[in-house]
Parts: sequence; structure tokens; C-alpha cells
Amino acid sequence: MNSKASDFVDTLVTVRYAETDQMGVVYYANYLIWMEVGRAAWCHDRGFHYRDLEAQHNRMMLVAEATCRYKAPARYEDIVLIRTAAGPSSDKVIRFIYEIRNQSNGQLLATGETVHVVTDRDLRPSRLPEQFGKLFLPPSAD
Amino acid sequence: MNSKASDFVDTLVTVRYAETDQMGVVYYANYLIWMEVGRAAWCHDRGFHYRDLEAQHNRMMLVAEATCRYKAPARYEDIVLIRTAAGPSSDKVIRFIYEIRNQSNGQLLATGETVHVVTDRDLRPSRLPEQFGKLFLPPSAD
Amino acid sequence: MNSKASDFVDTLVTVRYAETDQMGVVYYANYLIWMEVGRAAWCHDRGFHYRDLEAQHNRMMLVAEATCRYKAPARYEDIVLIRTAAGPSSDKVIRFIYEIRNQSNGQLLATGETVHVVTDRDLRPSRLPEQFGKLFLPPSAD
Amino acid sequence: MNSKASDFVDTLVTVRYAETDQMGVVYYANYLIWMEVGRAAWCHDRGFHYRDLEAQHNRMMLVAEATCRYKAPARYEDIVLIRTAAGPSSDKVIRFIYEIRNQSNGQLLATGETVHVVTDRDLRPSRLPEQFGKLFLPPSAD
Repeated sequence: MNSKASDFVDTLVTVRYAETDQMGVVYYANYLIWMEVGRAAWCHDRGFHYRDLEAQHNRMMLVAEATCRYKAPARYEDIVLIRTAAGPSSDKVIRFIYEIRNQSNGQLLATGETVHVVTDRDLRPSRLPEQFGKLFLPPSAD
Repeated sequence: MNSKASDFVDTLVTVRYAETDQMGVVYYANYLIWMEVGRAAWCHDRGFHYRDLEAQHNRMMLVAEATCRYKAPARYEDIVLIRTAAGPSSDKVIRFIYEIRNQSNGQLLATGETVHVVTDRDLRPSRLPEQFGKLFLPPSAD
Repeated sequence: MNSKASDFVDTLVTVRYAETDQMGVVYYANYLIWMEVGRAAWCHDRGFHYRDLEAQHNRMMLVAEATCRYKAPARYEDIVLIRTAAGPSSDKVIRFIYEIRNQSNGQLLATGETVHVVTDRDLRPSRLPEQFGKLFLPPSAD
Repeated sequence: MNSKASDFVDTLVTVRYAETDQMGVVYYANYLIWMEVGRAAWCHDRGFHYRDLEAQHNRMMLVAEATCRYKAPARYEDIVLIRTAAGPSSDKVIRFIYEIRNQSNGQLLATGETVHVVTDRDLRPSRLPEQFGKLFLPPSAD
């Protein structure tokens, strides 16, 4: 996977108390929620809302695989930078990659990837509507 | 509200690490999730699954109000007893009351109430199907 | 309780997919998480971070009671306005009140209150440090 | 990785409404919470509580990596079987593998792995106390 830095779409979250655990750091499953926040930001940057893909086009992106590598802990009230880029995708299978950083000092907190299968609203395999398919190619590709 | 002890339906949960926060105790919003677990147990005890009310009868119980009073903290791996009883209800508005206790020593952790409005699947006000309405009366009522 | 509109501190959240449930709306316990986000914003507005109250002053605000009245559902990708004001408080017991609205059309989604007991880090009753106590009085009080 | 079926420790969870999302299935991050429930069950089976490792031995298992492959969706009130086994581990790095199945029909819902680094309570790299280290070897190893 060779996404360039310029392919990343950035968004911020502030760590909620609810997201911490008794270890005093963010509980590991919450990074997958942050990846979802990153995907929504990526869609906005490409000019659409994910909810419209569901509501208007009857397509869903069912998660088929998710991986997260935790590099450093995030703590309550940290401002966290979520960087999201599309990985190799088709109109049937979509991949995203993520970098999660502490916004104030740039420290890398986690990296991850998700793979999604395009389905209809009954969770049957489907394809992206044509106008969406091209959005998942890197904007700089020739 | 004068539910008798015998009206309560009991179920157990074990506190998950995910449910704790950096204070070292269970985060307060999770008690509302436990109340939901209690409601499901109450429905089972009355002979039906809440999911069937939705899937087969197209009725939902939209939460209109929830209150929780926290008496003592719950901690990771505590076994928690959720006691649920129906409060004054009709076929349009349903009330539940809850007692949440530490199972090992009986200590009261929280009390609470929820109020629910019966809706159809488009969230419009509706009524419970007739066979369900009577289930929400205390079993011992004459 | 007679907080004036000017006493409210406002902050925004965007509804996450994780916060929805199969009813297609935000699950009710998540409003308590949003109230926590509102409290953090309120603290910032008063000039401190809640985490510093814990880390530097060894005080915690343990939740003693929470109530939420749900007026209209919130949906995925809605931008939600959380309005938070201090209610009648002392250096031992702190109260907050909340209004939760849809930012785009102003619709009231929920109202709520929380009561907090000031404790030390071992969850024993305590008092706010003096410099914090006065922050919980309405700014306009004479 | 060649864990035998007999190495798996099984535990059950019932899907909570809170765990579903507007797609009508369990939100993907919740599988990582179920893996945590599986790890706690595995520890019980080996004769200890994970909380005691923290409270009495000042060791934590910080998650370093987590992967989940989603095979079929789980739905509200499904009874889910979480099967957990130790993977290749040392006193510094611990691995678990998981199978998540629908209990009623045996359908495979997900597989996954987690890697954990043993730390002290300040999250500095550490080692398991000696009596715990051997527990992470497969019970059938000669």
C-alpha cells in the first residue's frame, strides 16, 4: 500500500471520559470507532455523506476486516488526529488505511486498516453506484 | 409505585473492562445499558422476546425518559444483579423500575426508572398488540 | 432552577455510526456521554480542564444521579448542539443541566440533569479546592 | 499457530440492543469487547482473575495489536459463543486467538487475534510474575 501523505483526509476528536478504562487510557475498541469517524470525514472530503449512500442509494459498507496496531496510549481530553486514506478498492470491496496521532505533539498512537464489502440493505453483496466508484481511487492517480 | 419484591425479574451481568473508566469504576452511562439487559430479561420472563415485538409486531418501545441514582460504584469483574419490574403502564406508555445490586454481597449500586412510548417502526405513536398489553400488569394483580 | 440562556455553554458533536442502534436512531445511553462532553466544554469555558481537577487536585466528580428526557430522536451524522449550565451547587455537590438540540434546525432532542458528589481519588466525599468552588456559581449572580 | 480445539475456553454473551447499529447488526467495534470477555473467561479457566493480575501483581496486558475478520453478522438477542485460546506467548508478550460463533447454529461470525505487552501500572514494559507465565503455555504441551 503506497498512499501518499497528500491522500490522507484529517479530522479531530477529543478523547471522552467514556472512552477511557481503568488502565487510565483509551480502551482499545474505541479506536475502531475513531476509524469510523475518519471514514465519514473521508467521504465528506470526496463530496458525499456516507448516510446518503445508505439512504439514497441503498448501499452499505459492511466491515469484513479490521486491524489496529497500538503504538502509544491516548488519554482523556487528548486531541486526536485521525488520518484516513483509501487503499486499493473496487466497486465491490473498499479498503481504508488510518494513522491516528496525538494532535498536540504529532506522536503516532496507532495505525490500522479496514476492509469493507459493498452490500445492499439486506446485506447481500452489491456494487457501488457508478458515480461513487471513482471516488475511491486516489485523487492523484493518472 | 408499589411493586412487590416478587414482581422483580432478576438477571446477572459481569462487569466488562470496557465498561470501566479512568476513575476505576463503571462509567455511568453503562447502567442504562444494564437496564436494557434487565428489560430483555423481564420480557423473557413474561414469555416473549423483545426482538419479536419489533420483528413480528412492528412495535418499538422508544425511551422517553430515563433516571438513574448511583449509590455505590461497580468495579471490573463484579457480578451485578439487575432487578427489573414493570411500573404503571398502558398499551401506549410503559414504565420499568430497576434495582442494581452487587450479587456477591447484596449491596445496592443503583436504582432507576425508564419510561417508554410504544411506536410503530417509523417511530410514530402506536399501541401494544392486545396479547402484550396484559403482560405489563403485575402478575399478582387481582 | 432558573439558569438563563446566557449561562449555557455550547458545544457540538456529530452523531457517530457507533452511537446508533437498530431502531435507526441514537441509543439512549449515549446522551449521557454527550452530557459528559458538555460538562468538559463547560469546564473549558470556566477556564480549566476537568482532567486537571483529577490530576492536579485529586478531586473527582462522581455521578450521583442522572436524568434524561428524550423529546425527538437524533440520527447518524446529525450535528448535535449540547448546551450545559451549572445548577445549584456547593463545594461538595455539583449540579448540571442540559439541553440537547439538533444544530441545523434547533429542534429540542432532549433535556437532562446530573448531580455529582465531589470525592478524592479513593472516592471518599471531599470538597472542591477553593479556587474551583466559585466557578460553579452562575457568572451573572450578584 | 496450531491451537487445538481443546485449547479453547468458551463463554457466552447475549447481544445487547446497545451493541447493534442502524445496519441492524452488531457494530464492528463490539467484537473487540467480546474478545475481552473471552480473555477474562480464559483467565478464569486457568485459575485466576485478570483483575487480580492488576490489583495484586501490578501487571497489565496492554493491547499492542488487534485484528478481527467478520464472516457473518450477529443480531440483537443472538446468543454468541466466544472461544478463546492462547497463542505463542512469553512472559513479556501474550497472544490470544478467538473464534466467535452463533451458539444456536454454530455459524462462524468472526475470527480474530490480539497481541498484548505486559506492563507495570505505569505502562512500562514488564514481565509476568513467574506463576502466571506458565499458564500461557497450551495445557497439552509436553
